[in-house]
Amino acid sequence: MQRKDRKKIHKIDGIKLSSVYSGMYKKKRLDLSIIEISSGSTISGVFTKNKAKSDTVTISQNNLKRGKSKYIIVNSGNANAGTGESGYKDIIKYSNILAKLSNSNLREILVFSTGVIGERIDVDKIIISIPKLLKTTDSENWLNFSKSILTTDTVNKIISKKVKIKGKYISITGCTKGSGMINPNMATMLSFVATDIKIKKSTLSKLLRKVTEKSYNMITVDGETSTNDSSILIATGKSNIEYENLNIKEKEFFYNEIENIYIGLAKKIIKDGEGSTKFITINVNNVASKSEGKKIAMKIAKSALVKTAMFAEDPNWGRILSAVGNAETKLNNLKKITISLGNIILFKNSEIYKKYDETKAIKYLKNKNIDINIDCNNGKHNATVWTTDLSYEYIKINAEYRT
Amino acid sequence: MQRKDRKKIHKIDGIKLSSVYSGMYKKKRLDLSIIEISSGSTISGVFTKNKAKSDTVTISQNNLKRGKSKYIIVNSGNANAGTGESGYKDIIKYSNILAKLSNSNLREILVFSTGVIGERIDVDKIIISIPKLLKTTDSENWLNFSKSILTTDTVNKIISKKVKIKGKYISITGCTKGSGMINPNMATMLSFVATDIKIKKSTLSKLLRKVTEKSYNMITVDGETSTNDSSILIATGKSNIEYENLNIKEKEFFYNEIENIYIGLAKKIIKDGEGSTKFITINVNNVASKSEGKKIAMKIAKSALVKTAMFAEDPNWGRILSAVGNAETKLNNLKKITISLGNIILFKNSEIYKKYDETKAIKYLKNKNIDINIDCNNGKHNATVWTTDLSYEYIKINAEYRT
Repeated sequence: MQRKDRKKIHKIDGIKLSSVYSGMYKKKRLDLSIIEISSGSTISGVFTKNKAKSDTVTISQNNLKRGKSKYIIVNSGNANAGTGESGYKDIIKYSNILAKLSNSNLREILVFSTGVIGERIDVDKIIISIPKLLKTTDSENWLNFSKSILTTDTVNKIISKKVKIKGKYISITGCTKGSGMINPNMATMLSFVATDIKIKKSTLSKLLRKVTEKSYNMITVDGETSTNDSSILIATGKSNIEYENLNIKEKEFFYNEIENIYIGLAKKIIKDGEGSTKFITINVNNVASKSEGKKIAMKIAKSALVKTAMFAEDPNWGRILSAVGNAETKLNNLKKITISLGNIILFKNSEIYKKYDETKAIKYLKNKNIDINIDCNNGKHNATVWTTDLSYEYIKINAEYRT
Repeated sequence: MQRKDRKKIHKIDGIKLSSVYSGMYKKKRLDLSIIEISSGSTISGVFTKNKAKSDTVTISQNNLKRGKSKYIIVNSGNANAGTGESGYKDIIKYSNILAKLSNSNLREILVFSTGVIGERIDVDKIIISIPKLLKTTDSENWLNFSKSILTTDTVNKIISKKVKIKGKYISITGCTKGSGMINPNMATMLSFVATDIKIKKSTLSKLLRKVTEKSYNMITVDGETSTNDSSILIATGKSNIEYENLNIKEKEFFYNEIENIYIGLAKKIIKDGEGSTKFITINVNNVASKSEGKKIAMKIAKSALVKTAMFAEDPNWGRILSAVGNAETKLNNLKKITISLGNIILFKNSEIYKKYDETKAIKYLKNKNIDINIDCNNGKHNATVWTTDLSYEYIKINAEYRT
């Protein structure tokens, strides 16, 4: 498994990473990392809209605006959120040590955290680890990095690709973490993607916002937007291919590759969703607008009754219909909608489909991957959302998380 | 228990009820009822905003608008929803029989249903029962009526009161049903309240909307608004006390009595919430407006992470803080908020409260009744929402409902 992962991971020229066990967890595991970013890189980020956001988010947002970033420091095990003025000082303290030891400016440090909310972080553990982190950075360390940022995740989530443009190769490697408290609003828990293309910051930001809307903003595990969601995209420019010099087709090709990586990473979060036994894709087709489609798909994805029915492998389309009816859209007439599970039509013309065979639907729901398809017959747009079912295990994980 | 219930129930002059077992369930239990409303009564209703609403809701809404209603017919076991044109004809068919046998007009019949969505109702079972229903109406039948409308409810929910105004007595009796799919939007699953005061229809409607906003619209079990939610308030006028003749103080007194009954009925639904082990009251105080307060309280009430923490008796205030941060309000600065469980302050001045003693909070959470108090220090308004925790049992009930 690890060998296979390792084989697929392309290093990004201009990016070096290192990870250590600093002691955030009782169990010995990687929990603290840095990313060293070569000068000349462009960096963009999107962040949680939760108003109780972690100071790490506010600090990183400000530092990103101010200029070039040289280091990213990330820990798991503690969210650095809800810890007040003293918690803010903690973050500044260890960021300052990193800045000094690496000959950087405090403003060139981006800082991210994920884990328990409301507990002060053990600053000393981080400070002690910084020299080792700085000494061991290496472009081959993506796998360890991807492991160090996990919390309740059960698998690490990394995607890497080499794509050919104008006869030259561009590498893209990214990883993400997240399993619960997943309902990103502008970004997911934590996501770091790097590529060696050369691209202007404004273009990179536009691109990141666009792919986020198609990937992290289209997933939900439990409808909970975290205090720490952050998604960072770095372009080192080391490939000497300039995005701005590509023709429209090449730009589109590159965009699609990036989008696929983001969708892939977002799907990995759902596949590892807390307590999930199903991977559910909700396609809302032929709808008046993308945002209307997303509203309908998200209402289904967040419905506790739909999620428990999927867990029970029960084709209870009444619950799906009720969720569609609850979405705040302009689709007032549900007479034209068709509800299907995979290719099996359940509901059409306002009632149970004439040829509906429940045994087939029950058999279909035994699959791990379930497609819920809503055809609105009301427009030309489509939206896809990915989610989990709701199981006893979700309750167990979240009733026992702190204890 | 029944004796105690029976003792408390005041009949309403002008209202007669009857209930039978028509065969909607395998188990022999009351499942079909009528209410006979004396002429001269005023009636008002509020209904679900779910766009996939049952035809019973549409029919009752239209008939309420058109004029005086003489009969209400209600069944449990089948929602009469998602059954298309043939399902609509089913409802009209048995409503017509009731109209004919009672010398009424079809427009004078209000019809309500609750139960499984998407299955055709057995019309014959209803038609066979109508003569018996018409023969056995009695003003003393409230208790049986309240039982006949239950579905996954584990207890019947009825409140009755006699209040003295201008030296005379007014009676108010009402009942409700609901346990899951509870997140009323204008009304709950089914609610019927009657009083013998004399009141204009427009005043009655205003009054019903106002109390609904304070009661049924302030509860949530699982964030699911049903296809059938209906709340009916009847004033028979038989007490000869005219609301319009009361002075301001008496009007206020009467309004408060009605509001208390509605809040009491709404709380009964939460106490019987599917799989709940806790009755949770969320008070958001000193907030800029009632609607902002409701948004914050509802975000907490719908948070799966807060609900599982309450189930686990874990004072995880970080999840409460995160939920407050996710509410779409103008409260951008969370530095002024205080989070308490009962009288125990957990979070203040952006961090864990200096004198916070977790053992006390854990002990407090062992209670069945939990108060989550948010002080926004940002205005003069308050909002209260009632909800349940989220337990294994909720998953069990909803994973096994149809099977």
